[in-house]
Amino acid sequence: MGLQINRKVEHRPDSCIKEAIDILKQRFGDRLGTSRAVREQHGKGEDHHPVVPPDAVFFAEATDEVAEAVRICAEYKVPIIPFGTGTSLEGHVAALNGGVSIDVSRMNRVLEVNVEDLDCRVQPGVTRKQLNEYLRDTGLMFPIDPGADASIGGMTATRASGTNAVRYGTMRENVLGLTVVTADGRIIRTSQRARKSSAGYDLTRLFVGSEGTLGVITEISLRLYGIPESIVSALCSYPDLESAVNTVIQTIQMGIPVSRIEIADEVQMKAINDYSGTDLPVTPMLWFEFHGTEAGTAEQAEMVKTISDDWGGGDFQWTASPEERAKLWQARHDAAYAAKGIRRGAEVWATDVCVPISRLAECIVETQKDINENNLIAPIVGHVGDGNFHLVLIADKDDEDEMTRANAVNERLVQRAISMDGTCTGEHGIGMGKMDFLIAEHGEAVSVMRLIKKALDPHNIMNPGKILRI
Amino acid sequence: MGLQINRKVEHRPDSCIKEAIDILKQRFGDRLGTSRAVREQHGKGEDHHPVVPPDAVFFAEATDEVAEAVRICAEYKVPIIPFGTGTSLEGHVAALNGGVSIDVSRMNRVLEVNVEDLDCRVQPGVTRKQLNEYLRDTGLMFPIDPGADASIGGMTATRASGTNAVRYGTMRENVLGLTVVTADGRIIRTSQRARKSSAGYDLTRLFVGSEGTLGVITEISLRLYGIPESIVSALCSYPDLESAVNTVIQTIQMGIPVSRIEIADEVQMKAINDYSGTDLPVTPMLWFEFHGTEAGTAEQAEMVKTISDDWGGGDFQWTASPEERAKLWQARHDAAYAAKGIRRGAEVWATDVCVPISRLAECIVETQKDINENNLIAPIVGHVGDGNFHLVLIADKDDEDEMTRANAVNERLVQRAISMDGTCTGEHGIGMGKMDFLIAEHGEAVSVMRLIKKALDPHNIMNPGKILRI
Repeated sequence: MGLQINRKVEHRPDSCIKEAIDILKQRFGDRLGTSRAVREQHGKGEDHHPVVPPDAVFFAEATDEVAEAVRICAEYKVPIIPFGTGTSLEGHVAALNGGVSIDVSRMNRVLEVNVEDLDCRVQPGVTRKQLNEYLRDTGLMFPIDPGADASIGGMTATRASGTNAVRYGTMRENVLGLTVVTADGRIIRTSQRARKSSAGYDLTRLFVGSEGTLGVITEISLRLYGIPESIVSALCSYPDLESAVNTVIQTIQMGIPVSRIEIADEVQMKAINDYSGTDLPVTPMLWFEFHGTEAGTAEQAEMVKTISDDWGGGDFQWTASPEERAKLWQARHDAAYAAKGIRRGAEVWATDVCVPISRLAECIVETQKDINENNLIAPIVGHVGDGNFHLVLIADKDDEDEMTRANAVNERLVQRAISMDGTCTGEHGIGMGKMDFLIAEHGEAVSVMRLIKKALDPHNIMNPGKILRI
Repeated sequence: MGLQINRKVEHRPDSCIKEAIDILKQRFGDRLGTSRAVREQHGKGEDHHPVVPPDAVFFAEATDEVAEAVRICAEYKVPIIPFGTGTSLEGHVAALNGGVSIDVSRMNRVLEVNVEDLDCRVQPGVTRKQLNEYLRDTGLMFPIDPGADASIGGMTATRASGTNAVRYGTMRENVLGLTVVTADGRIIRTSQRARKSSAGYDLTRLFVGSEGTLGVITEISLRLYGIPESIVSALCSYPDLESAVNTVIQTIQMGIPVSRIEIADEVQMKAINDYSGTDLPVTPMLWFEFHGTEAGTAEQAEMVKTISDDWGGGDFQWTASPEERAKLWQARHDAAYAAKGIRRGAEVWATDVCVPISRLAECIVETQKDINENNLIAPIVGHVGDGNFHLVLIADKDDEDEMTRANAVNERLVQRAISMDGTCTGEHGIGMGKMDFLIAEHGEAVSVMRLIKKALDPHNIMNPGKILRI
């Protein structure tokens, strides 16, 4: 996509990287991997960007070790790229200037759970499913679900959200505090465990979403929630996108505390049917989920049913049965695989934007039109309660013309979202893929981001080439 | 309290300030106030700190004007202190190094309300009551209520919260974006209007709680909520603090979405009775409020009643009648005035801390013991669902020994909170009163805050002497 990769920058000769790696190797032995396979595995996420492997991969096991490794790299001005599960979507882990990937997947312990306070502290390599498995006996849950079984460290670094965010917020709202290794190898804790604080600058929120460019996150304190007494789900079809979106708007406006509200367009629904052998209507669909007491969820579902009926929604059947709920959500969970199945071997390019909900229908409809006019396949799914939707562009990466058209559709999608007072990414992050869009969206404010980056990482060793051009 | 006030710093001779003020006077005429009365009124909040007036007060009417004034001050390295309603509690508005107070109270327009998107954009001088008055016909509300009818700008700058935060969050969660004038007089917008975003560093959250030390906030986008269909309140007495707090813990843990849950200790209850002529039990009390549908609030109230009964709570009567609710909350709203009434003419020194809720009872009980052992009067009230409580130290400011004891009690309160993994301030902020405590709480992380301050305000002209010593 016209990306320029500077494999090495001037001030960082290969000899420096070699020396730093030798020291790391001496110190950490086998846990410093330099084989081609290991390096390549760490040079790409689940995205459409090229593989750009680091010079070495350090499998860290403790905060102190991360700090030590960062100090060694800092001395030699060698880049550091934090790595969790490798499920990022905008080239976040590509080693654009070489350097050392710090793989935190072995830092996967839940350090404490404070049941009374509804919080916990985990290492960054803990995945969200692992955490919920661990919590099960406590009656608590961590609701943020970006789809992939991502690491909590990665979810923090990219300010992830996904389904459930409409009720429980994103990582922004659910990270209570962090332990971070700064660019000069110091260890800081951004917050105590109190639920709120007015004590100084909000460093927690600064590191949430910083994509490894300001420091390495080595511990995360999270907010937890009681597993609801009752969970009720529903799936409903609509005559057109506007009707589906208007159902959502009215639901949100009435303050109905819906936990999930997901959309898929007709292209996505066809892909799901083809993939799963289901026979769901090939029209815009909404999935709903309600959490609460039995009486509460029934009341919520009935209220939404009334709204849905008003907008011409199909048969709105809600269910509390775990089996039926699982079946109903399976279609939504299959969406990503179904999209990949549309055209085997093609590039699957996931992008996302988020707009004020009042502009959502217009934004999706214009985007569908653009996709069709450019002869592309790109199913749409979305966390529609937040105004956030995803396009999965299915293109042949060897077909230059098709890739150019896909790129242009993505650019216009972002411009459209920004012109509607939305953002170029609701939950995927900037990485190396959306740096120009960051400037288009934030303008002068990017210069303030740059001041912060330069102050906290003066030698630009923390995940260089991501978020900001320095 | 041993505070050293450097009326002027070396690099900023009086002649510079005079020259800058002359230019501002020429430019803004009458809106540049230099009378003693105006200056003194802007040199103190509602706190126990001394009056430290600025050299001039500029009554700004637009973002562009603020930017212009900042550019003039920046050229002469003259300090700038933003001023809203003057209700801050830790000396935030004191002009410690002289300079110009920028009073934004005339910037009091609601700029837009987007009913469908549940958001609005306001100027910083709009007060929370004014905003809710403005919103009334829309069916929407802005729930954050720190007690005082503070300006939205000031609430943003101090990361305010108050009652309702247990359900709706603090300013941290409810500010969607800001327009800020930076220390060099540029105008930036920190965020688009999308409900969530992963695009770059979270500048919004960096400026929320920055207390005027990083820039002047000139516009605020806020999240709004539908006015609930039903509001139900209750007031209940408890045999001791632990029982009251355990009722709260269990309520929160069960995920009952209580909107307000407030505590007062026996000293506060006696003060309320004395002040208001009421006959409420002189024991720890809890106020509750529930928002939702009629069925939902009734269900919530009944669930809490069961918990409350288990912990020996008194007669738990809940009411949906607006008149009865107003009467019931009057006692809570009277708390601050009642505390002031305990000893006329005495200094009223409000301080606050916030701890994990599991440590709350212990923290309050130890604090009460300390107050008693030191022969002081200090009623306690708190936003107990968050683990946040306030001490109102009532002391004679001319009695040096008593003030020393009050100071020591405050210090130990903060140390106690920090040792329980809590914070030195839940919602009042650092200002000039809690700078040492910030270091005790955050340790090494303060050095990162200092890097940010130096990067964004290299000449230390934005509210110098607050939050950080530079």
